[in-house]
Amino acid sequence: MSERAADNVIFVGKKPSMAYVLGVMTQFSGGQPEVHIKARGKSISRAVDVAEIVRRRFITDVQIKDIQISTEERELEDKTKINVSTIEIVLGK
Amino acid sequence: MSERAADNVIFVGKKPSMAYVLGVMTQFSGGQPEVHIKARGKSISRAVDVAEIVRRRFITDVQIKDIQISTEERELEDKTKINVSTIEIVLGK
Repeated sequence: MSERAADNVIFVGKKPSMAYVLGVMTQFSGGQPEVHIKARGKSISRAVDVAEIVRRRFITDVQIKDIQISTEERELEDKTKINVSTIEIVLGK
Repeated sequence: MSERAADNVIFVGKKPSMAYVLGVMTQFSGGQPEVHIKARGKSISRAVDVAEIVRRRFITDVQIKDIQISTEERELEDKTKINVSTIEIVLGK
């Protein structure tokens, strides 16, 4: 999962869900046919909230096209390596 | 999502991930061809961890067959209704 986000990729972190919901809606309003919602670690739950809020409350013709989960190895400052789960949810019209 | 778990359904809650990993592995060892990992709310991240740990570290011939996300309405003690996101990850050989 790259940190360099394409326009239609929303990285979900620690902000309130609605900040990311707005980001997703802006992409769809701008004409993107698909938006990829990505998150890792504890933010995964929030990514699912974002996808569900968008498709149930705001853009009801949007569907879940794909959901992938994976594991990423991250190196901490002390060079310790840890595994972090990731999710990618693809929403599309 | 029913609270009455079939044998091959593991509900992920607030225990450490390895408790649920053990539960999943017990189901596969007992001959289940598929195990469904379910969680809601903040436990969704842990459910993804459980699926990833099982398939990467313990039973490497297990694959992710399906991932569904949804929303469940829950009633609090004061009768307030809140929406909670859910996930169901199906692992199978």
